[in-house]
Formats: sequence, structure tokens, C-alpha cells
Amino acid sequence: MKRKKIGVLLAGCGVMDGSEIHEATLTLYFLDKSGAECVCTAPNRDQLDVIDHATGNPGSQKRNVLVEAARIARGKIVDVASVNAGDLDAIIIPGGLGAAKNLCTFAKDGPDCSVDEGVAKLLRELHRRQKPIGALCIAPALLARLFGKDFPVELTIGFDPGTASALEKMGAKHKSANVDEIVIDHGNRIVTTPCYMLAQGITDVGAGVEKLVNKILEMTNSE
Amino acid sequence: MKRKKIGVLLAGCGVMDGSEIHEATLTLYFLDKSGAECVCTAPNRDQLDVIDHATGNPGSQKRNVLVEAARIARGKIVDVASVNAGDLDAIIIPGGLGAAKNLCTFAKDGPDCSVDEGVAKLLRELHRRQKPIGALCIAPALLARLFGKDFPVELTIGFDPGTASALEKMGAKHKSANVDEIVIDHGNRIVTTPCYMLAQGITDVGAGVEKLVNKILEMTNSE
Repeated sequence: MKRKKIGVLLAGCGVMDGSEIHEATLTLYFLDKSGAECVCTAPNRDQLDVIDHATGNPGSQKRNVLVEAARIARGKIVDVASVNAGDLDAIIIPGGLGAAKNLCTFAKDGPDCSVDEGVAKLLRELHRRQKPIGALCIAPALLARLFGKDFPVELTIGFDPGTASALEKMGAKHKSANVDEIVIDHGNRIVTTPCYMLAQGITDVGAGVEKLVNKILEMTNSE
Repeated sequence: MKRKKIGVLLAGCGVMDGSEIHEATLTLYFLDKSGAECVCTAPNRDQLDVIDHATGNPGSQKRNVLVEAARIARGKIVDVASVNAGDLDAIIIPGGLGAAKNLCTFAKDGPDCSVDEGVAKLLRELHRRQKPIGALCIAPALLARLFGKDFPVELTIGFDPGTASALEKMGAKHKSANVDEIVIDHGNRIVTTPCYMLAQGITDVGAGVEKLVNKILEMTNSE
């Protein structure tokens, strides 16, 4: 059987300014374990900011999203602007604040946020082709912005009322979920899970990610 | 039962200049899954270098080992110089070139390398107290340097002949192992596994790390 090619859309490296490392790594782990091929990708642009993860304070360094994401991908990464939707069977977007700072501007602009052009183009085209899209933690905000206006996408970010209401302002339908649950929007072929929006530790994250990965792979078999 | 406290000694964030992210994350994952408490720690010093992980080229930025390691630890990290060996039940050292660049100077100096003072003090004290020490990938080089002169520690880095011979020059006994195997030195209470010295992918890494974590936890019950 041909190996499924699953995109993993990264946003840097580190929960406070990039992709959450545990969510991203466990996504790669469960995909690889299920025999899928991971295609790591990220936008080639400056990060919104660089946060000192020991103190939580912002610093003055500049860092590039693709270059930092390459740390998680061990160097094997492609610019999202050059990824062809036809080459992927599905995509998964780990969380971390980078998803809301570098893939879109939700962290800064809330429901009025804009989405990186390459990210928007790829995700819209995958959605149009009915290829499954998975999103963890805060990454569903990006999907609410992209699709909420035209489709009543059903998503979860756990149960934080402020974030849930921001998603609904963008046209999404929010559904509360526990950390080990996934929310499946069959019509839009979107699967989401709360991860560190709720997780008390990395084991909780693993539970949600493993379920989401299995569901996404199962959906690639039912086109 | 009291939760075991297991140190995870980090060396930055990224395979080329810090801790290998998959090895570090899966160490945290399997420890947490087994009910252990992870105590992330790293030396508070500048990295030897900063490598662009997208190109493999060295850059000119300065980064701090502890601050970058905090990305893997999600901010919960302590300076290795302030960790008391008596507070830990065991320690595990993930690989990545940072283990050979920032914890010791093996990458630059080979068998003549020196070891970070705080790292040396903590590991020597753990060894003296017969607390188990685990090391992944290239991290066993650090243990060869620290203990090889006084104890014939048995270690694996897979089967790369050059690295194996460098370990033996430091007084260690090298034992070849496959990626899903662990080498146990019962006398010195040291467990090692090759990880990305041999791994073809993250699933291979998971197999070795899971075995090593289980063995280390088992050894904390047999003091």
C-alpha cells in the first residue's frame, strides 16, 4: 500500500512564539508509527516575536519561522508557499502560540486576524479537495478565520469561554471537549483536539494527538 | 506511592546545536506516562554555536543553553548547578549535538574533551549515590569522559567505529547495539541506547527511549 503523505504545518519551535514542541513531536511520532510519511512545512517569514522561554519575557532577536521549525523537523522542511495540495493526503497543524502569531495574527488581532498567504492558499485548496485537516490546541482559530465565513465549521479549543466566543465570532461553531477527546466535522473533514489548552501534562497531549492522527488517517481512506 | 523524580538533562533545543527534540520529548512522554515527575535542567551558559537547521550552516547569533532548553521544558527548568543529587531518583540525558557541544566539548575536542562543571558535579554525585543514569544517542560520550578513567563503564552509541573508538580511548567499554536495544551497565547503574545514531525515523527513537525509561524506573526500585 502506498504510504500516506501527511503535511505537518509548523509555526516555529517553542510554545510561546512557535509550535508547541510536544504537540508537534507527538504528531510526527504517531504519524510515523502508523506508517505515514510526514511532510513538515512552515511559512518562510520572520516570527512575530521571540520569547525567552525561561522567563516568559520578550527579547529583541529576530528569528525566521521556517528556520526555527526546522529544529523540530531535523532539517527536512519545505516552504509552505511551495507545497502543492495535490501532493498531500491530509494536513495536521500543531498548536503553540506560533499558530496564532506566525500562521495567522489571532494572538494580536483576535477575530479580525489575517492569515499568512501561503498557509491560506494551501489550506483552502486542501479543503476544496476534501482532504482532511487536523488542528491542535489554539490552531483551530486559524481554521475558524479561514473557513468560518463560508462554512459552519465545527471546532474545539477545549472550553475556554473567551477563545470559544472568538471562534464563534469568526463564524465557527464551537463544541466543548475534554483533553482526550476529538471533535470531528464530517462535512468539512476537519478534526480538532484541545491538547495544551487543557492538558495537565504531556501524557494528556499524547492521548488527544494519537486519536486525532488515527482519525485523520482513517479519513484519508474514505474519500 | 511517591512519584519518582527523574532529571532530564537538556543541552539546548535542536539536533545540530542542542538537545535532539524528538529524543527529549519522547523521554518526557514515556516518563510522564509511567507516573514519574520530570525535572528538566540545563547548564546556564552560552551555546557553543547556533546552527541554521534549515541549511545546516552556522550563524552568528548567541543563544543560552538553559533558555533554549526551556522551549522543550515549556518554561519549567532549573539551572543544573543548583540541582541537588539527593532530590533526584535518576537522570536521563537525551542526545543531539548539544550533548557534545554544550554539556561537554566532545564534538570539538574528542577524547580530550572537558565537561561543564555543574553537569560534572551532578552526574558524579548521582553515580556515587548509585542513582541510575540514562543516556541517548551521543550523550554516552559525556559519561565515558566523566567515569571512564575510574570505572570501566559499558556504553553504546550504536556501532559507528570512530565514535566507539573515541569512547574506548576515554576508558569506556563500547558495546554495539541496535536502535531498539538498550545496554545496561548494572555495576555503574548506567543505561544507554543509540536513538538517532542509528534511527531511520522517530518510531525507532521511541522504541529505544521507551525501553530505557522503563529500565531506569525499574532500577530506581532496586537500590
